Amino acid sequence: MTADRLTFNTKHLISALVTAGVKNFVISPGSRSTPIALLIAEYAQYDATIHYWVDVDERSAAFFALGLAKGSQQPVVLLATSGTAVLEYLPAVAEAQVSEIPLILLTANRPQELQNLGAAQTIPQIEPFTVYAKNQLSLALQDDEPGVTEYIDFKVQALVHEAWRTPAGPVQIDLPLRKPLLPDMGKAPIEPVQPLTYAAMSKRTLGSPHSLTAYRRIMILAGPNVTEDYQDQLWQFAQAYSIPVWTDILSRVRTPKSLYGLNDWLADDKLDSKYLPDLVLRFGKTPISPNLLSWLKQKAIPIWQIGMPADLDYTRQSQRCFEMSPSEFLNSVACVQSNEQQAFHARWQALKPNKGTSRASNLISCLDQTVKPDQAIFVANSLSIRQMDTYFSGKNSHKIYANRGVNGIDGIISSALGLSVSQKPHRSILLTGDLSFFHDMNGLMMAKKYQLPLDIIIMNNNGGGIFAGLPQAQCKQYFTELFATPLNLDFQAIAQVYDLPYTAVQNVAQLPQLLNQPVTAGPQLILYESDTY
Amino acid sequence: MTADRLTFNTKHLISALVTAGVKNFVISPGSRSTPIALLIAEYAQYDATIHYWVDVDERSAAFFALGLAKGSQQPVVLLATSGTAVLEYLPAVAEAQVSEIPLILLTANRPQELQNLGAAQTIPQIEPFTVYAKNQLSLALQDDEPGVTEYIDFKVQALVHEAWRTPAGPVQIDLPLRKPLLPDMGKAPIEPVQPLTYAAMSKRTLGSPHSLTAYRRIMILAGPNVTEDYQDQLWQFAQAYSIPVWTDILSRVRTPKSLYGLNDWLADDKLDSKYLPDLVLRFGKTPISPNLLSWLKQKAIPIWQIGMPADLDYTRQSQRCFEMSPSEFLNSVACVQSNEQQAFHARWQALKPNKGTSRASNLISCLDQTVKPDQAIFVANSLSIRQMDTYFSGKNSHKIYANRGVNGIDGIISSALGLSVSQKPHRSILLTGDLSFFHDMNGLMMAKKYQLPLDIIIMNNNGGGIFAGLPQAQCKQYFTELFATPLNLDFQAIAQVYDLPYTAVQNVAQLPQLLNQPVTAGPQLILYESDTY
Ligand SMILES: Cc1ncc(C[n+]2csc(CCOP(=O)(O)OP(=O)(O)O)c2C)c(N)n1
Ligand SMILES: Cc1ncc(C[n+]2csc(CCOP(=O)(O)OP(=O)(O)O)c2C)c(N)n1
Repeated sequence: MTADRLTFNTKHLISALVTAGVKNFVISPGSRSTPIALLIAEYAQYDATIHYWVDVDERSAAFFALGLAKGSQQPVVLLATSGTAVLEYLPAVAEAQVSEIPLILLTANRPQELQNLGAAQTIPQIEPFTVYAKNQLSLALQDDEPGVTEYIDFKVQALVHEAWRTPAGPVQIDLPLRKPLLPDMGKAPIEPVQPLTYAAMSKRTLGSPHSLTAYRRIMILAGPNVTEDYQDQLWQFAQAYSIPVWTDILSRVRTPKSLYGLNDWLADDKLDSKYLPDLVLRFGKTPISPNLLSWLKQKAIPIWQIGMPADLDYTRQSQRCFEMSPSEFLNSVACVQSNEQQAFHARWQALKPNKGTSRASNLISCLDQTVKPDQAIFVANSLSIRQMDTYFSGKNSHKIYANRGVNGIDGIISSALGLSVSQKPHRSILLTGDLSFFHDMNGLMMAKKYQLPLDIIIMNNNGGGIFAGLPQAQCKQYFTELFATPLNLDFQAIAQVYDLPYTAVQNVAQLPQLLNQPVTAGPQLILYESDTY
Repeated sequence: MTADRLTFNTKHLISALVTAGVKNFVISPGSRSTPIALLIAEYAQYDATIHYWVDVDERSAAFFALGLAKGSQQPVVLLATSGTAVLEYLPAVAEAQVSEIPLILLTANRPQELQNLGAAQTIPQIEPFTVYAKNQLSLALQDDEPGVTEYIDFKVQALVHEAWRTPAGPVQIDLPLRKPLLPDMGKAPIEPVQPLTYAAMSKRTLGSPHSLTAYRRIMILAGPNVTEDYQDQLWQFAQAYSIPVWTDILSRVRTPKSLYGLNDWLADDKLDSKYLPDLVLRFGKTPISPNLLSWLKQKAIPIWQIGMPADLDYTRQSQRCFEMSPSEFLNSVACVQSNEQQAFHARWQALKPNKGTSRASNLISCLDQTVKPDQAIFVANSLSIRQMDTYFSGKNSHKIYANRGVNGIDGIISSALGLSVSQKPHRSILLTGDLSFFHDMNGLMMAKKYQLPLDIIIMNNNGGGIFAGLPQAQCKQYFTELFATPLNLDFQAIAQVYDLPYTAVQNVAQLPQLLNQPVTAGPQLILYESDTY
């Protein structure tokens, strides 16, 4: 085992990652990962399309990579040293799995002869990821066997492809390394590798051709959408056949003419039988709002679900699963025009979305007006995403993002910052509650360090406002301490810690000007006092 | 399934935990965990020996529980809602496993019929812990079957016992829960359970009685010590037979007359053959300093290792493993006095520990003088713990703690705060580097909220000073960005965010007064500019 072999194979590892489509590396400092970190940095000196980012807190780093992969629709590489550093990745990796984001974990490890013997920073670091990773590999870069280099070239490209292939997800490459860890710097920084390319997989033929011609009250429910931009195609189809489209805020197809903000109609069951669809086509993931789904379930409406995987429906209501993209489905489906469908469409379109009178709805209506065409908004979970789902019309932008795989309140700032990188030269916006903001405050370090163009809007209600709408709100004696958990954050001081321009806005009229910064102005913090619920 | 059954069984769960010895619960807010959180709070109203703590950031919460369990030598319960919240526990759980700390994880979950179907906050949350937990259980509290209540009483006590039994470690109880989640409050808050008690296990007899009578140059190496207080017994034994004792800073047996701070002697191989032991008795875990271990390995000295488990020796040098506590071993071993052993002892005792002239060594010498008898000091990894190991004589206190299982730089503040709870009415001290401080800054919220009596001393060298001593320091072009990673923290502003009294001390003479606060004074932040390396 020589430093040369380590250097040579590590260069192949990096080149294979890049050849397979990786552009961004997010690195956290550590000793065991030394050769990989140094050679990535050197690589980037010679290839201006490659970027690396350094984040001390691995939890934030992983969410940063998640946001960046989400926004760029490209796989992003994470690199950490051995030990708990690696485990810090898990929350973001779980989110990546469920929301289908390609993350490539490089986890430095101690070599086999130091495992499970009391050596420092040495723990099982493959097992915790097994249930979340699409695939895992352990790669001994210091192995002198010549076949190993070829294996790296081939297998690493294959792994990146696997992470990227629909449904996308995380993969892990564990790297047991022996000392000495210092690579040979300054020589032939880039090792070329033989590219491995993939032709599109041949389509499986489904049992029977699918036709909608038997239906007269079709409705489309467009749920959260991970990768596809099928807006134009959908609206052409919907218009041609007068199909009403209920759009989740994360569907990327919401427009003011789509159905949204109608939860009250469903919740109070104000809609008579003329509103009942005879078929619902569900695209994408589970919608934010449970109301439509439970209404459909209660009315026993047939549902076809389209996507990869197409069988994730917690209402257990879907009857046919189409393992294809919405766009493939729309291309191949047969439909007819009918008067009944037209009347059905007109009836739904006549329902008016809830406008709202709360401070939160004011803010969101203002954002709806103010956001630039196709500017990205990252939305935290809890009330933020629900209120966006209810009040945001999508008239200017449908680039709305959230961590809606596992709905964690962790990693929100980092995810939004990662996203903002992918959106340059545009600025991006983050809309978050105060607890979610607190949970990932460390993430702000990346905003400061790289001066990322993100407008962070905190909808502050001093605690978890969402719980005020749940039954436990009745337990007054314990509610505040156990659920609301107000933290009385000093936002001004937080802004100072991270050198962020800070504005507490009194009313929404101040927002348009604040959100009109150039991309070079870097990040800013905007505090908006919101409603408890 | 009725709310009554949920309430009844949850009370049994809590009572079983308490009956088995749990005193502290660390709760993070969430919806799925509602009944458990509320009934813990209610229980604590009626039993003043039970405490609960609320921490929004689950990562910090888990490290807080870890520190509290470490200091109190009692199992501590963690409660989180489903989803990524649960995964945030993993870094602390891995540390608990390796450093043998009993943590009881209660993880709320969605019921089986919502698993893996796209329901919100629903992920596999048992698998990631399997490799770290001693045992895991899934408990359906809403099951009407009467046997279930008895099962809870029995099995939960058994699990706590298992977590606590040497070698201690984490266990997980996953709790799938259906709506409605609101328990019946205000009635019979405490359900008594039948206590399950354990007699000490009968000792296994080892193959042969163990005797030291054949050896004339015995040395003891006391490594990090998890639970045992065998100081007096060890020193009686060592004195009776003139055995030099090399003490790790975490051994809880270090005194000024023990061997420590002698690394230079070993590193430079200045010691001739008269210093070679003919047998080394190793107690406890892997020592901080690798020097003695590598010297012993190089000289091929026979080693006996005593502890549970006794076969964790990454130098693979141990020849006999004694699966018993140091105290049991010392009680049962036969030894003789000899002139050769006396001379050997005198020779080692004549070596002078390294005093140091750095700012770090000054600080530690000052702490050594200033710390109150048996006051606890939590020490961060990286340079802090190494320098403590080199310079701290233990003249006043041997209560030194660290996360030395996996050596993470994560969770340090929270671990120290948890520890400080267990040390009341005494104040505790945290000694940390600036990156470790940053990594768990959120942990400070608990300091503020509960006004915990912790003096936080930051040895600031603006980045990871430890890397300056590693080979990568030669790569000047990348060193600062990839390894040192200076964050230029604004400590004053951080203190303001958490309402902490803040002092930047110019020299160590200011410390004694600062460290002389009453326990009621709550937390404080002390900044000390330290050396790069
Ligand atoms: C990591 C994690 N911990 C806990 C939860 C449970 N949870 C859901 S919403 C919420 C409160 C969020 O408060 P905030 O971000 O202020 O938003 P608000 O409810 O006020 O909109 C909590 C704790 C979660 N989803 N994820
Ligand atoms: C969670 C985690 N991430 C990364 C590491 C690798 N690491 C070890 S020491 C260190 C630097 C610590 O810096 P600081 O706390 O300022 O202490 P100093 O080295 O200056 O003593 C890092 C990043 C680790 N041990 N744990």
